[in-house]
Amino acid sequence: MEKLSTQVCEACRADAPLLTQEEITSLIPKVEGWEITVEDNLQKLTRVFKTKSYAQSLLFTNAVATLAEEANHHPLIVLEYASVTVQWWSHKIKGLHRNDFIMAAKTSESF
Amino acid sequence: MEKLSTQVCEACRADAPLLTQEEITSLIPKVEGWEITVEDNLQKLTRVFKTKSYAQSLLFTNAVATLAEEANHHPLIVLEYASVTVQWWSHKIKGLHRNDFIMAAKTSESF
Repeated sequence: MEKLSTQVCEACRADAPLLTQEEITSLIPKVEGWEITVEDNLQKLTRVFKTKSYAQSLLFTNAVATLAEEANHHPLIVLEYASVTVQWWSHKIKGLHRNDFIMAAKTSESF
Repeated sequence: MEKLSTQVCEACRADAPLLTQEEITSLIPKVEGWEITVEDNLQKLTRVFKTKSYAQSLLFTNAVATLAEEANHHPLIVLEYASVTVQWWSHKIKGLHRNDFIMAAKTSESF
């Protein structure tokens, strides 16, 4: 099967189905280092990237932002001195779509 | 008195005193839009900046990061689609130093 990181996000409609727990369970091993977190009753895909410097944190933040603009799908990014936390979820459907796993895989590749 | 935003941060030593509540009360009116938040028992200076676009969010994030590098004092920045949240506090002293108010004022000026 094609790697997640080379796949392209489809337009996410408000009536697109959330991933089922079974689908999530089968996708999560494909995005190493990412975990499912729950905030405000929303499932999100979260990873903390530890960096060696603030310059690296900032470069990575900009790289993820570029991916986000290209896909027109935007994560939450927490920029700190020696870490960058990235969270992907689909606002329109209030949870996880396959797009989020594609973006998580692309994010990891750009680190 | 000299504007906060034109002042320079002093080196923050681990034994520098935290600001007293009285000092915080006198400084907070000088940084409009900022509020004191408490997380993990630490007082932080927090402001949410609403933006018009992701491009503006990203530009502002980079501007704040540049200020941070210049002062060698680094905030937590949360970059989202139409907002940037900035939190200043002094890690070494586990709370608020006058430097944080200076950086908050500089942050607001760069918005």
